[in-house]
Amino acid sequence: MTLKTYLPILDWGRRYNRQTLTSDLIAAVIVTIMLIPQSLAYALLAGLPPEVGLYASVLPLVAYAIFGTSSALAVGPVAVVSLMTAAAVGRIAAEGTADYASAAIVLAALSGIFLMAMGLFRLGFVANFLSHPVISGFITASGLIIATSQLGGILGIKTEGHAMPELLHSIVAHIGDINWYTLAVGLVSLGLLLWIRYDLKNWLARFGVPKGVAAIIVRAGPVLVVFLTMAWSALFDLKGKGVSLVGEVPQGLPLLSLPSFNLDTIQALAVPAIIISIVGFVESISVAQTLAARRRERIKPDQELIGLGASNMAAALGGGYPVTGGFARSVVNFDAGAATPAAGAFTAVGIAGATLLLTPFLAVLPKATLAATIVVAVLTLVDFSILKRAWTYSKADFVAVAFTLVGTLIFGVETGIALGVGASILIFLYRSSRPHAAIVGQVPGTEHFRNIKRHKVDTVPGVLSIRIDESLYFANARYLEDLVTDQVTRNPGLTDVVLMCSAVNAIDMSALESLEAIRHHLDDMGVRLHLSEVKGPVMDRLAGTEFIEALKGRVHLSQHQAMQAISGRSGEDEQAVPLPSTVAG
Amino acid sequence: MTLKTYLPILDWGRRYNRQTLTSDLIAAVIVTIMLIPQSLAYALLAGLPPEVGLYASVLPLVAYAIFGTSSALAVGPVAVVSLMTAAAVGRIAAEGTADYASAAIVLAALSGIFLMAMGLFRLGFVANFLSHPVISGFITASGLIIATSQLGGILGIKTEGHAMPELLHSIVAHIGDINWYTLAVGLVSLGLLLWIRYDLKNWLARFGVPKGVAAIIVRAGPVLVVFLTMAWSALFDLKGKGVSLVGEVPQGLPLLSLPSFNLDTIQALAVPAIIISIVGFVESISVAQTLAARRRERIKPDQELIGLGASNMAAALGGGYPVTGGFARSVVNFDAGAATPAAGAFTAVGIAGATLLLTPFLAVLPKATLAATIVVAVLTLVDFSILKRAWTYSKADFVAVAFTLVGTLIFGVETGIALGVGASILIFLYRSSRPHAAIVGQVPGTEHFRNIKRHKVDTVPGVLSIRIDESLYFANARYLEDLVTDQVTRNPGLTDVVLMCSAVNAIDMSALESLEAIRHHLDDMGVRLHLSEVKGPVMDRLAGTEFIEALKGRVHLSQHQAMQAISGRSGEDEQAVPLPSTVAG
Repeated sequence: MTLKTYLPILDWGRRYNRQTLTSDLIAAVIVTIMLIPQSLAYALLAGLPPEVGLYASVLPLVAYAIFGTSSALAVGPVAVVSLMTAAAVGRIAAEGTADYASAAIVLAALSGIFLMAMGLFRLGFVANFLSHPVISGFITASGLIIATSQLGGILGIKTEGHAMPELLHSIVAHIGDINWYTLAVGLVSLGLLLWIRYDLKNWLARFGVPKGVAAIIVRAGPVLVVFLTMAWSALFDLKGKGVSLVGEVPQGLPLLSLPSFNLDTIQALAVPAIIISIVGFVESISVAQTLAARRRERIKPDQELIGLGASNMAAALGGGYPVTGGFARSVVNFDAGAATPAAGAFTAVGIAGATLLLTPFLAVLPKATLAATIVVAVLTLVDFSILKRAWTYSKADFVAVAFTLVGTLIFGVETGIALGVGASILIFLYRSSRPHAAIVGQVPGTEHFRNIKRHKVDTVPGVLSIRIDESLYFANARYLEDLVTDQVTRNPGLTDVVLMCSAVNAIDMSALESLEAIRHHLDDMGVRLHLSEVKGPVMDRLAGTEFIEALKGRVHLSQHQAMQAISGRSGEDEQAVPLPSTVAG
Repeated sequence: MTLKTYLPILDWGRRYNRQTLTSDLIAAVIVTIMLIPQSLAYALLAGLPPEVGLYASVLPLVAYAIFGTSSALAVGPVAVVSLMTAAAVGRIAAEGTADYASAAIVLAALSGIFLMAMGLFRLGFVANFLSHPVISGFITASGLIIATSQLGGILGIKTEGHAMPELLHSIVAHIGDINWYTLAVGLVSLGLLLWIRYDLKNWLARFGVPKGVAAIIVRAGPVLVVFLTMAWSALFDLKGKGVSLVGEVPQGLPLLSLPSFNLDTIQALAVPAIIISIVGFVESISVAQTLAARRRERIKPDQELIGLGASNMAAALGGGYPVTGGFARSVVNFDAGAATPAAGAFTAVGIAGATLLLTPFLAVLPKATLAATIVVAVLTLVDFSILKRAWTYSKADFVAVAFTLVGTLIFGVETGIALGVGASILIFLYRSSRPHAAIVGQVPGTEHFRNIKRHKVDTVPGVLSIRIDESLYFANARYLEDLVTDQVTRNPGLTDVVLMCSAVNAIDMSALESLEAIRHHLDDMGVRLHLSEVKGPVMDRLAGTEFIEALKGRVHLSQHQAMQAISGRSGEDEQAVPLPSTVAG
């Protein structure tokens, strides 16, 4: 039972049959074709040799197949995590050095350990603090940064930095170094890739190619562009004309090796590893949940953490760099019919084969082709519509999006996301510290009580019913005190105040002190304090406190019962004492 | 109108008469007598020459009288702020140097500017984030640290540090240096002060001294101890016996002078100044509000910020150090009958006079007497009962108290309070990220709906009503998705799900996405989603969103109306389609 929880393969493996095998194999072929150029390109984006992208697309996929719960998630190098890797590793090592590559391996190992620990301790909820606006702003900004950084590759000039100001500055500074052959390769690749993505399908349809075949050709398009530009490069000696090529790469797959940890590297990479882990997890879980919902499947967030943790540990062992579940690739995997996580393992076999076959030819591949591949891939990440939607829905969400977007563009990925999370938490705290409150009255003909400002309601003279729309806690405790005191001094004829607690989900000790102060204050003024609709968990705590013991009024099950009880009693009082309004008058 | 808001003196000054003058004068005499030894002692605690305490008790009181709104608050040096001053200034200058004193002046100036700015921009709510448990834990820990630090003064040995580990270590290390004459002075002072505080009143009563006179004698007690030990010191040449004395102090009051700002000092003191300001403000506003409530007066928090800001600026101009409203002293002021802030101004005159008269004699005052004064004063700060009360009421509040208490003891005041605030915010966020939710049914004979687990309620087959007890926002959006999906898969016969939103005070964009996902999911399963009791401000936002437009169910005013509408419709459906449970069965 427990073993099956931690090793989902034991579950779906038992039900594996010829039909699922066929589905998985077809999906694996399509994803492999898509993954080859992407993994080369993303490694380059991460500042690593392109073959590292292939290494990161073998073992991690096998690990996810064993530990993961999503049947459609395609794990491997992705754009945003590659950018974050470059930003993190670039701070402690120079690109192209052995230190750089081994730091990337350590980063993958740390990320794997962290994800695994989060999964084992069931800390997946931490990822919830990356709100939707923050993620959207972050992904759009990352897309823009990545596209800009690849401009250099297409123009054949060097770019520096992982945030907009440095990138733009380095492009402007080196604009004179444009290599026109590189630019030609870059623009042709870009044009072809865009044409393949947006027009090829319709074009093939016109020639009567069946839809299924057309879809596969479209997926294979980027690989064809890679082969085309390799041929161009070899035939016309682009290297001699100053075009930057991938160059010699070691043949085959690297041997398994343990990452070489040292304390300085770990200290420098711990925080980036945590951020990369959380961002990667959120990206991965979002697509996994979306795809699972379409098939009425459930994925288990805590087990997904373990699956992604295992993938990153595998990436470290196999000479790769941090990986996660990619959005576009997973959708392709899903559409191609991947039935179980085994599809990922078959993809790994495909990539391993491709690595053995391709490496001899990679030497002549122009880097501009890979830059174009990245630009086309990240175009889908950039989505400004979130700004407009957030603006329309809520200014607070807009501030969170804008803050993250601008922060990431200017200060880079880590600071940007920290600013976004910080801003969204502060906004939440600020809003809950100034809660909405309403004076309520009875909706005629019902037992329902609503805001007197929004609904036609009946009120009882001498009784003030306040509905406070927030849990009561330290940040708003004093606010409540002020509100009640203010209302009571404004209504001198009062005999009873009812706090309708239907929206009060918790009362902490600071708020309890405030309630005591309110009670004291009302006692002094001869006004009874009542509570109504106090929720079970809140009442459990309040029961037995001095506040409740000394309450002159009562705790009523519903606001309606509170009003009935008070009106009834007021009626009796009228015989004995003057009317409340007379007392005050 | 506006001028009167910012200068409350214009308001109460108009109503000033002979009666208020008499009350204020009597209160001022009593507070002056109490303040003299305290101000000397607290300055010593802050690492400053004792006379600085007197300087800090003149101009700040006048400034508060002009700008403050509390008739009872007695501003001046207080224990906790003195400890925080020592911790902050001790990091950038050595005790006893001119740099140290001028850094304390800069700290007062920065604190004054910060408080004033908070008041002008109406940012008083920031102080609410210091929850009651955090403040309690912090004050108790500060009291313990202060008492321990004064042990050295009583034993005649040197102590170092402003947190427990260093303090205890330095006491143990120097325990061999005890000066027995100092210890004698210290213990006699301590004994006398404790006797005065706890027994003198009863003792005097036995001799038939009237209560009012007895109270004044008790207040004057500490000053008598000061005079007594001064005489002892002078007559028996305690200095020659190695007892540490206050020593020569400049006569009279210092001239007004602008603090000498330099950028390094400001940078080093900015954060401590902010923390001191907020802690001082919270301490001050708590006592001011408590006392105001007893007299049915209102104090204005934002104007209090301006009043305390002006006091600290005045402290900086007059050669003092950070001040705030003291608890014990304000209670004495209140009990003595202070009728307006003018009582503070009269106290200032008293202290100024005492400074002129006392300074010649201060040279012979043993520091041990002042240490004993502090120990007795801070005893009231230490209150462990908060730990027990918090434990009983809520484990979360207990964690906040314990975290602040232990953090402050071990790491000192600034880190301690930061840990406490951080912990209480994290606890709040954690709890709101895992909200309580209840499946609800109708309380028989009412239109009220409550938790089926806690109340005897009626439910309708095929209809699931979930009341979610938290605002929906990024941290719990996914939680809600999981909850609803889980409930729906467990109840296969469902036709309708009603989300009762009486406790949902806000829905942010992330939560809106989750609601959309829930709607999609339910649509796919042929289950209608309804909302009920959506609050006005929440509905304002939701109106016009795709979520509401595409809702298969409806938004009902009350849960009762939702159930009526659904049951009515279910009734019709029964004619056409099989019963919901039959569909599932």
